[in-house]
Amino acid sequence: MKECIFCKMVHGEINIKKIYEDEKTLAFLDLAPASPKGGHILVIPKKHYKLIYEMSQEDSNAIMETIKKVSKAILNWSEGLNVLQNNGHVSGQAVFHAHFHLIPRFENDGIEIEKWSPRNYKDGEMTKIQQQIKTLLKES
Amino acid sequence: MKECIFCKMVHGEINIKKIYEDEKTLAFLDLAPASPKGGHILVIPKKHYKLIYEMSQEDSNAIMETIKKVSKAILNWSEGLNVLQNNGHVSGQAVFHAHFHLIPRFENDGIEIEKWSPRNYKDGEMTKIQQQIKTLLKES
Repeated sequence: MKECIFCKMVHGEINIKKIYEDEKTLAFLDLAPASPKGGHILVIPKKHYKLIYEMSQEDSNAIMETIKKVSKAILNWSEGLNVLQNNGHVSGQAVFHAHFHLIPRFENDGIEIEKWSPRNYKDGEMTKIQQQIKTLLKES
Repeated sequence: MKECIFCKMVHGEINIKKIYEDEKTLAFLDLAPASPKGGHILVIPKKHYKLIYEMSQEDSNAIMETIKKVSKAILNWSEGLNVLQNNGHVSGQAVFHAHFHLIPRFENDGIEIEKWSPRNYKDGEMTKIQQQIKTLLKES
């Protein structure tokens, strides 16, 4: 896509710090890392998709293999790793070319990705939501 | 694995609100949803793995297909979606059976998963980190 910054990176029009590349995927350092020690990596399909479910099976399988490969390397260095993929503006997606954040984690690194406040379901609510999503699943 | 709560769910020993199941994967409602409207779903491989990179290609391909399927359904209802997978205690992994959180998002829902404070790399630091991770990649 002409105006997409990640497509430009794929086509070599923007300088990146490449970590890994194959026919279908690209992994490179995020310019503004979440992690104090850096090493925050983005893994993207070379083909332009906005949302996770839009990826072809071939591309999403390739993405998974690259994520696994790079995760293994990171986890030889870091104490933990978050893999995060955002869909839609309200989720935090800033570039509308599907991408996976690989964020190395260390004890007391101040990152609060997983620090949500869980709530409890009310009586009957869980079954209602379950049925709602199962219906959506059948329709989609 | 005998003492793993997710393995027990796979084997029907613990009651769950199932959303989707196939030969290799299972999707069910998280008991303590991050999202105020609920619908927070966990997608897991039926086979026990701790970390993302430990999954066989067959299992991780199957997981990706289930994630895509359920994501599409959720995004027919929600305004956005976070897909999050944590590796290791410091990353927020609480159950040591690899799992993917699918968290429906809505405007002003108060969830702050993606609200990290990005920092900048110092001069030369980015190249150093790039080389370090590329070396780890070759070794792993």
